[in-house]
Amino acid sequence: MRATTIHGPRDIRFGEAKDPVIKRPTQAVVKVTAGCICGSDLWPYRGENPIREGATIGHECVGVVEEVGGEVSVFKPGDFVIVPFCHSDNTCAHCRAGVQSACPQGGMTTSGQSEYAVVNQADGSLVATDGHPDDALLPSLLALSDVMPTGWHAAVAAGVQPGGTVVVVGDGAVGLCGVLAASVMGAERVIAMSRHEPRQQIAREFGATDVVAERGEEGEALVMQMTDGVGADAVLECVGNGPAMSTAFAVARPGATVGFVGVPHGVEPPVSTMFSKNVGLRGGVAPVRRYLPELLELVTSGRIDPGRVFDLTLPLEEVAEGYLAMDERRAVKVMLRP
Amino acid sequence: MRATTIHGPRDIRFGEAKDPVIKRPTQAVVKVTAGCICGSDLWPYRGENPIREGATIGHECVGVVEEVGGEVSVFKPGDFVIVPFCHSDNTCAHCRAGVQSACPQGGMTTSGQSEYAVVNQADGSLVATDGHPDDALLPSLLALSDVMPTGWHAAVAAGVQPGGTVVVVGDGAVGLCGVLAASVMGAERVIAMSRHEPRQQIAREFGATDVVAERGEEGEALVMQMTDGVGADAVLECVGNGPAMSTAFAVARPGATVGFVGVPHGVEPPVSTMFSKNVGLRGGVAPVRRYLPELLELVTSGRIDPGRVFDLTLPLEEVAEGYLAMDERRAVKVMLRP
Repeated sequence: MRATTIHGPRDIRFGEAKDPVIKRPTQAVVKVTAGCICGSDLWPYRGENPIREGATIGHECVGVVEEVGGEVSVFKPGDFVIVPFCHSDNTCAHCRAGVQSACPQGGMTTSGQSEYAVVNQADGSLVATDGHPDDALLPSLLALSDVMPTGWHAAVAAGVQPGGTVVVVGDGAVGLCGVLAASVMGAERVIAMSRHEPRQQIAREFGATDVVAERGEEGEALVMQMTDGVGADAVLECVGNGPAMSTAFAVARPGATVGFVGVPHGVEPPVSTMFSKNVGLRGGVAPVRRYLPELLELVTSGRIDPGRVFDLTLPLEEVAEGYLAMDERRAVKVMLRP
Repeated sequence: MRATTIHGPRDIRFGEAKDPVIKRPTQAVVKVTAGCICGSDLWPYRGENPIREGATIGHECVGVVEEVGGEVSVFKPGDFVIVPFCHSDNTCAHCRAGVQSACPQGGMTTSGQSEYAVVNQADGSLVATDGHPDDALLPSLLALSDVMPTGWHAAVAAGVQPGGTVVVVGDGAVGLCGVLAASVMGAERVIAMSRHEPRQQIAREFGATDVVAERGEEGEALVMQMTDGVGADAVLECVGNGPAMSTAFAVARPGATVGFVGVPHGVEPPVSTMFSKNVGLRGGVAPVRRYLPELLELVTSGRIDPGRVFDLTLPLEEVAEGYLAMDERRAVKVMLRP
């Protein structure tokens, strides 16, 4: 098949790779209809994560089941499916507790920016749509493989409640989906911390009632002022670095929880502040499969349109340009079509 | 009045100090019927916290209202009251949200090991009993000024649920009260990590179904074995140091929350583990006033007997011996009678 591989910092290639093979009877091969680039793919791209030279890259996709292993009984070739980036048997203790991202039988998609992807535990991981969707729905369905459930997880972890005030730190695609999640969950006020005008626009479409463009102490002071010195009931930290985490804790009211979903890089939770203010920290790798049924219903009913985060679509072979566009912040999130 | 003062590491003195004076109209002076020594008093005693030479010490007491300021309307001289160690107006945004320990009008008791204590925001802080209690009830009422609500807060922060499995790290008085809290909240299994036989005994009386005497990796492996490799639904971290926190995260199942109430000393939350396992951290200074009505009812109805943690009672003038007994672990918690 043709696949995207990474060979070093800023060295993304598209070309021939090994065809996918079913190695375990619980696996399935999915022919990718659409894939995309994740903010977390930029860590190795920028050389900030270790790189295995020549490895396939990409963990978000939707597509059509091509082949299934002998123990796959729920899905059959031809089914259109959403592929959660983290796989799960959906039967073990962790899955039953709603933490499918901790399933020991899981693993994750490793060739989402390719023509085919292999899914472990297909029966427990995949979710099928009702028939094959229109192209217009593709972006929002694709968003369900990672970015939207991740924003949703931040809101769940932070304990967003109807009527509350929520601050979202980070205006990447995950942060924007966090805004959407908080809004759908009934937050009365959603303050998006975003300094990029096109992203502010999407944030407002997703339900942000306020936008704070300032960063650091200045931005924190503004949020405190907007909340009468009290702080936010829930804070979604959707970046994963130290300054973002620091801002998240600064604007959280006592008793609040910071929901974090950005892979931590150089983050040291301020444990003394957490203790004195009674502000919690909770989150992690999103259990996508847990949220998929509910989110799919929201998408197909037209209630949410998370696909709005894709502001650039490229043919799969131009994937390298997609990385560059995201790295240079010319695009929020790039969809790739084989 | 006669009061306990600290003058340096292991230098606790009892003698004459300034009489308490009402400086603000919302304050009250309470004549101490019983006070006690807190595990956190041992930090300055051991020289691990800064000491202001000659300062009064002690923040837990019950007693009789002696005098009230002009704006105190709920309490009058002669009322028997429980004095939460942290004071609160009980009307501000933080108090209304149940985080009375973050009340900006609050402050805390600073002479609980003395003949008199001054309480800020008396109306919002104090809780009176129905008449003057028998001496037999004193220990349990005294436990409500800090230690029991702190253990309770750990359980609330950790999200203890009926039917769940709870691990309590730390067998100090707070940890033991955490066991009691988890048990009252309906946890089916309460695993107390305790290596001191007298404390194990109290833990069992308080509802521990299992005791793990081993520490560190050995203790963690045992808990994982006891929970079929899954881990605990909720973990109460009642120590406040690095090894205890490390054990707490090691035995928490994915999706669980570690409730922490020990003042952090040398603690660095393991953010990567928190992220990959989806284990949260939440807790802090207990909002005693929030829990007092419920806990007082549990005590007066005989449902709980948190006073059981006091295994040594001394005349107030022997307070220095009380510190020594707790420092040498000859006593779990010391009650002092003026």
